[in-house]
Amino acid sequence: MIKGNLVDVFTERIYPAEIYFSDGVIECVKPVEDKFNHFILPGFIDAHIHIESSMLTPSKFAETVVPHGTTSVVSDPHEIANVLGTRGIKYMIKDAATVPLNIFFTAPSCVPATPFETSGAIINAKEIDKLLDMDEIVALGEMMNFPGVLADDIEVMTKINAAKKHKKPVDGHAPLLSGEELCKYIKAGISTDHECTIASEVIEKRKLGMKIMLRQGSSAKNLVDLIDAGGDFIVSDDKHPEDLIKGHVNLMLKEAVQSGLDPIKAIKMATLNPATHYNLNKGLIAPGKAADIVIVDNLEDFNVKDVFIGGKKVASDGKPLFSINSPDLQSTFNIKDKVPDDFEILSSNKEEKVKVIEVIEGQLLTEESESVLKVSDGKLMPDIKKDILKISVLERYGQNKITNAFVQGFGLQDGAIASSVAHDSHNIIVVGTNSQDMAEAANKLVKNNGGLVIAFNGDHHSLKLPIAGLMSNETAAEVSLKLETLHNVLEDIGCKLDSPFMTMSFLALLVIPKLKISDGGLFDVEKFEFVDVIK
Amino acid sequence: MIKGNLVDVFTERIYPAEIYFSDGVIECVKPVEDKFNHFILPGFIDAHIHIESSMLTPSKFAETVVPHGTTSVVSDPHEIANVLGTRGIKYMIKDAATVPLNIFFTAPSCVPATPFETSGAIINAKEIDKLLDMDEIVALGEMMNFPGVLADDIEVMTKINAAKKHKKPVDGHAPLLSGEELCKYIKAGISTDHECTIASEVIEKRKLGMKIMLRQGSSAKNLVDLIDAGGDFIVSDDKHPEDLIKGHVNLMLKEAVQSGLDPIKAIKMATLNPATHYNLNKGLIAPGKAADIVIVDNLEDFNVKDVFIGGKKVASDGKPLFSINSPDLQSTFNIKDKVPDDFEILSSNKEEKVKVIEVIEGQLLTEESESVLKVSDGKLMPDIKKDILKISVLERYGQNKITNAFVQGFGLQDGAIASSVAHDSHNIIVVGTNSQDMAEAANKLVKNNGGLVIAFNGDHHSLKLPIAGLMSNETAAEVSLKLETLHNVLEDIGCKLDSPFMTMSFLALLVIPKLKISDGGLFDVEKFEFVDVIK
Repeated sequence: MIKGNLVDVFTERIYPAEIYFSDGVIECVKPVEDKFNHFILPGFIDAHIHIESSMLTPSKFAETVVPHGTTSVVSDPHEIANVLGTRGIKYMIKDAATVPLNIFFTAPSCVPATPFETSGAIINAKEIDKLLDMDEIVALGEMMNFPGVLADDIEVMTKINAAKKHKKPVDGHAPLLSGEELCKYIKAGISTDHECTIASEVIEKRKLGMKIMLRQGSSAKNLVDLIDAGGDFIVSDDKHPEDLIKGHVNLMLKEAVQSGLDPIKAIKMATLNPATHYNLNKGLIAPGKAADIVIVDNLEDFNVKDVFIGGKKVASDGKPLFSINSPDLQSTFNIKDKVPDDFEILSSNKEEKVKVIEVIEGQLLTEESESVLKVSDGKLMPDIKKDILKISVLERYGQNKITNAFVQGFGLQDGAIASSVAHDSHNIIVVGTNSQDMAEAANKLVKNNGGLVIAFNGDHHSLKLPIAGLMSNETAAEVSLKLETLHNVLEDIGCKLDSPFMTMSFLALLVIPKLKISDGGLFDVEKFEFVDVIK
Repeated sequence: MIKGNLVDVFTERIYPAEIYFSDGVIECVKPVEDKFNHFILPGFIDAHIHIESSMLTPSKFAETVVPHGTTSVVSDPHEIANVLGTRGIKYMIKDAATVPLNIFFTAPSCVPATPFETSGAIINAKEIDKLLDMDEIVALGEMMNFPGVLADDIEVMTKINAAKKHKKPVDGHAPLLSGEELCKYIKAGISTDHECTIASEVIEKRKLGMKIMLRQGSSAKNLVDLIDAGGDFIVSDDKHPEDLIKGHVNLMLKEAVQSGLDPIKAIKMATLNPATHYNLNKGLIAPGKAADIVIVDNLEDFNVKDVFIGGKKVASDGKPLFSINSPDLQSTFNIKDKVPDDFEILSSNKEEKVKVIEVIEGQLLTEESESVLKVSDGKLMPDIKKDILKISVLERYGQNKITNAFVQGFGLQDGAIASSVAHDSHNIIVVGTNSQDMAEAANKLVKNNGGLVIAFNGDHHSLKLPIAGLMSNETAAEVSLKLETLHNVLEDIGCKLDSPFMTMSFLALLVIPKLKISDGGLFDVEKFEFVDVIK
């Protein structure tokens, strides 16, 4: 039995109560005459997150977020699915089953993200149908391919119909879609959106019946701007390990209340609303529901004292009370050792005018600039003084393709960095001042079975992400510390970006303008075609 | 395309808009700059009704309610199921399919209602499972057997589990259930209740997560009393033909607004809320939803101008624009002709002290009184001066059982009345001043294949209900007129009750105190056992 001031999300009242439960299920809620200083809340639900972005396995993620009061998440395993397909999703489900956190998944709807890159797997409509048949899969994942929806693409519509057949909702992803196109997107059966960035967008989508997820993650923070426009859920989308250590849904609730939202309304957006939408039987304090309960000190700070999942105390005073043992995963890399020459662009001229990817701090967008680069020994040379560095994408799923180009904005004076986190296909992306270090960084990364690497002066620094090249099975604190070390090293060798690895990871994301790179070549997103490096 | 002031139940706004639809489905909702005098609302949903109580077939019911703006109902075919089982439910579905009204059904959970009566059918858990597999069946019908739930009755729990398996909700029926018993009832998986009669009951149930249906039917009217306590749906439960002619959900909305409820909140209770709960894809104006739309003049009177179902105009200015042709149904009566002696209670004494059922005008409850009656020719005689009449229940499903007793409160000076509407097993119930007229009334009723009959002085008056003995396939106006004629005749022969047939129909309902009668005998509800007529 647990007692305290119960926050009742059904009638929006707070009253002293005792909660009785047995076998993990709430039996009865009894009003009592008593005074308490603490509050009983339903366990928090993050209705939209990509766990891979935390660089932690589901179980290590659970270890980090459960003490913050998170008892359920709906995770879209889009990243690992691009690497390993259904096998990757099954790994996530298997690992998730080892911890008390309720981790529900969506079936990733867009694998691969585009036909202009080599992914590790394809998830077709038939595969989606099978995934949706699983109890752990509660929805079709965010339908990023809105052009496909608008064009009545058969494969896309077959995936959506599979969700309808299984009576599971379809999540949306439709930034700034409006008017008739938005109507058509909704008519297809898509019921949520987490990409709103302006209030009028929220209002238009809500008027058409969409449920809006207000996002407050590590990358995109829209909650405060949009809260007055209304919304149904508060979600994170992506959370990085250093942020997850500080808090999760509890912090989002605190920020929502600081922005003027009524605390009970905020709590509903992280409990009742997602529980109902995804048919979870979690996140509610009522007879017959799972006994997932959070005790907080007040409804302003949401400092989490105790957390119960399925009636068991699973965290207390910020510490998890369960053990973690993530299963291992075989290396997902099928790639030959690289040599410096692999990273060269050859020319028989003395110099060449080239297209350059220009990164913008803190944005997924890039610009395109041009530069004239010298040729030495028949090889196009970077211009380190002008911060024009070399960039390469190395296909890692057995085809050994490689694309080389140039990038401006990293500021490295020496060495090279490599990452196997490169949205959405997660090939190996490398940025460097010279081919030797680029080859070293890439080879070290493969030896590590994935992760982040800095190579310079014959030295290496790594954060290993051996689970699909995306995730570590170390703790959030360890991963966060190693990432900080890498950032410090990069600062020493001149890097000007706050999060260089994250910025780099989006340079292969072909759906955000303007100039990007895949293993197939340099890619002009506005023209939606490959373009030559040399103009 | 339809245009007007759109009542947007998602964001609770009203704005001028154009609604585009094709193939019965809404394509787009476009805000426009224009002024209108009329309002566009989602089609109304009555989330809980027993169509049989209207004495109309589903298609005749549709003819009556669609012009009032009702576009969907969730009907519990509990009455016909007690007569004909699954065959009766299938008749309802088949007939419903002939009209544009969306008639969804629930699988009746309690057939028969008690083991103390002979019903025409038994619907066991296996049958329930099959019914729940049908698209037309959207929930398990009201679980009246709350003692069974509280006692973990295996058959009851198997029915509830079948609903869970099919991801369909379970409707409740738990008048005044409270505290731990209520918790146990909810924990079993029951999510709605329409039996609340006091505000504290509404609040207790809502705090425990139940969705409350505020009832405003022909018999029970709780809406006005309970509206301040909150609720999720507005429903009718039972509507009689003479009331249905005047209005349906439109009138309930009017009464809710008159009682101080915000019009948009009221509309949500008859559109968005039931649509979401029963997963109907109806009752919403948004892309991809069925184009079920109602045009009203204002949000106080809710006078319905035009009604669209699936994009087709189906009613205008109170007139249906579709034709009705109910399928016939074979006679459901398997009973031998009765003779006056069948209605006698024999005694070898000169007089006997007997238990008498005492009816209370307008209530389902009865009282028990006692009286001393004379014996003539070995037969117990009614005492017409004291208004102590004879009452009988005649089993009609082939066993030819008959039970005789006494009743006070009808006031008849002559003749007898008979009805094949007798909750819940719908055997034939007869009240009369003498055995001759009682036999005449019963035999005439069987000849009519069911319905209501008055017999006196060798004359007859009837309302035929040949569909299972419960429903007519005449229009509501015709049925209503015939019922009025019967009431006038009864007044002429001394009847003191407003609705004598309805009052009589509840005298066989064994779950409401105190003294009732079934084909098995006189029944003391408080003792929950048969008792002797002669004390």
